[in-house]
Amino acid sequence: MTLSIRGFAALSETAPLAPHTFTRRDPRPDDVVIDILYCGVCHSDIHQARNEWHNSIYPMVPGHEIIGRVSDVGPQVTGFKKGDLVGVGCMVDSCQHCASCAEGLEQYCEEGATLTYNGVDRHDNLPTYGGYSDRIVVSHKFVLHLSPKLDLKSAAPLLCAGITTYSPLRHWKVGAGSKVAIIGLGGLGHMGLKLAKAMGADVSLFTRSPGKEAEARRLGASHVILSTDSAQMKAAVGQFDLILDTVPHQHDLNPYLPTLSRNGTHVLVGLLGPLDPAVNSVLLIHGRHSVAGSAIGGIAETQEMLDFCSEKGITADVEMIDIGQINTAYERMLKSDVHYRFVIDMASLKTA
Amino acid sequence: MTLSIRGFAALSETAPLAPHTFTRRDPRPDDVVIDILYCGVCHSDIHQARNEWHNSIYPMVPGHEIIGRVSDVGPQVTGFKKGDLVGVGCMVDSCQHCASCAEGLEQYCEEGATLTYNGVDRHDNLPTYGGYSDRIVVSHKFVLHLSPKLDLKSAAPLLCAGITTYSPLRHWKVGAGSKVAIIGLGGLGHMGLKLAKAMGADVSLFTRSPGKEAEARRLGASHVILSTDSAQMKAAVGQFDLILDTVPHQHDLNPYLPTLSRNGTHVLVGLLGPLDPAVNSVLLIHGRHSVAGSAIGGIAETQEMLDFCSEKGITADVEMIDIGQINTAYERMLKSDVHYRFVIDMASLKTA
Repeated sequence: MTLSIRGFAALSETAPLAPHTFTRRDPRPDDVVIDILYCGVCHSDIHQARNEWHNSIYPMVPGHEIIGRVSDVGPQVTGFKKGDLVGVGCMVDSCQHCASCAEGLEQYCEEGATLTYNGVDRHDNLPTYGGYSDRIVVSHKFVLHLSPKLDLKSAAPLLCAGITTYSPLRHWKVGAGSKVAIIGLGGLGHMGLKLAKAMGADVSLFTRSPGKEAEARRLGASHVILSTDSAQMKAAVGQFDLILDTVPHQHDLNPYLPTLSRNGTHVLVGLLGPLDPAVNSVLLIHGRHSVAGSAIGGIAETQEMLDFCSEKGITADVEMIDIGQINTAYERMLKSDVHYRFVIDMASLKTA
Repeated sequence: MTLSIRGFAALSETAPLAPHTFTRRDPRPDDVVIDILYCGVCHSDIHQARNEWHNSIYPMVPGHEIIGRVSDVGPQVTGFKKGDLVGVGCMVDSCQHCASCAEGLEQYCEEGATLTYNGVDRHDNLPTYGGYSDRIVVSHKFVLHLSPKLDLKSAAPLLCAGITTYSPLRHWKVGAGSKVAIIGLGGLGHMGLKLAKAMGADVSLFTRSPGKEAEARRLGASHVILSTDSAQMKAAVGQFDLILDTVPHQHDLNPYLPTLSRNGTHVLVGLLGPLDPAVNSVLLIHGRHSVAGSAIGGIAETQEMLDFCSEKGITADVEMIDIGQINTAYERMLKSDVHYRFVIDMASLKTA
């Protein structure tokens, strides 16, 4: 048997997403079969549906913020059984033998992790298809446990936006007494505020919009710095141990670098591309500052993040949509018109 | 009394250096008066003599790699007495009360350290003058002890080139088992090779010139990677915990970033200016890489470096010159025609 799947796909870089039927592999002995309940909508879904990273495989079924319920497990599966609530994030496999995988950092797999969609399975060489669909088949090593305490709908964005912000906060040892600033108040940024606050940090938001202050404070910011106000930027000099930069498009890092404390790090989690305008090295040398990048998180760390969020009562702020609204949702995301993440109720596939 | 000093100065950004008589302050109670024996010639001497950083004060007496002998001490001076061999580096004062100074990191003084030359004394507001001169007056807090085991002439460059490479190697915890690469084989680069090797690291040199291999190995490199050879660059992917980039002019960092190991750092110690061509953030995100900057080192760390060099028998490779040859030396430095640092024998001032 080969599983017949219903979903939504882009058939080319210019086509809107539309209903699409495709097949997934017969479950292998270590596979978990998951009925998908909810799937978050990430900005990278748009980039890849439209081939903006020039590596798209069509048909493309996006979606890597997947919440579902186990419907079947292979004989070698441990830790999961039919009926379990589970999550799947950006990766569904990795080489499992390099130094990064050995440390549980599959996102830095030296051979490249297998992405949940727009990837190629490393065993059968077939394309991978994501969560805008009714079922998915994933090795148990890449399936996450969900606490029943988590709200399922709003937990979906934790699988990408959550772990992408959680991992650098942990790696750079944010905790009580840390001073953290977030740049950008979107899907990633709003999770950064919540998570940094829950870790005990004193959290600031850099924003270009004065109107965002109340929202930022509601989400965890103690301070809101208007980046267009030179007096406010000057007052922030030397303040931040970590700046978490979630902006997904080109922007100038130089105004932010002086606000780092000595040994502080400006970590990029949103932008893929050249740092243009150019970073001035003088702003790195003064204060021994760093500009770094960070990619999602490993599977063990993703589980840790989900458990942390369950304990702290943290999920994303979401707007629920039906799958038939996905193209409109993309247009709204491009105008930053979402608070703060769209999540698709996958039950809507039945009537789409 | 005000001390009358003989030296060499640039009187304008276009004038060659020439003999110049000037005054230094009467020694304060905490001052050490030093007869200068040798002074290293740093690339930044040229930048500042020619106002290339647009902040030059004239007349300018360059020189911040100073070796000398104490001729007098004020009543509050501790730790130094007449006849002691001492060194002075890039700083002669700092605020002494900010968080950086409190940690002994005067180079990151929040109010700005007082530079040895082209600075302004924070007590009398008079310009500071450097080591191309016969005597200097410096607070004992910024004077370094020199072991008699060190060769005095070739120790001079330790005060800038030495500490500028030592500090990042220590900060990023280079030791036995570390893999370090140096970019650039000049005054800083050749010290980087020696120091990283002495710390127990496996050291590589990136170079564009095949002819530098024997020299690099003599100075401590176990591997020489021709950066113009794509096969060699590909073989180096994922190798280095730390890249110490000593290149003082604009260059493309992107080819080097993939050679960092996971969590590896590319630290800039030579370039002051925009990172142009632009760094691509994809190369930071893949592998959680950082680009950082580092400035000289604190006074305590400079003393530690001098003691380390004494213990390990490390000094710079130098070419001795008379002060009358300084303008020719600058021209040769601009052609990278020096192995690897010019040091002025200051006795030559008497006949200049």
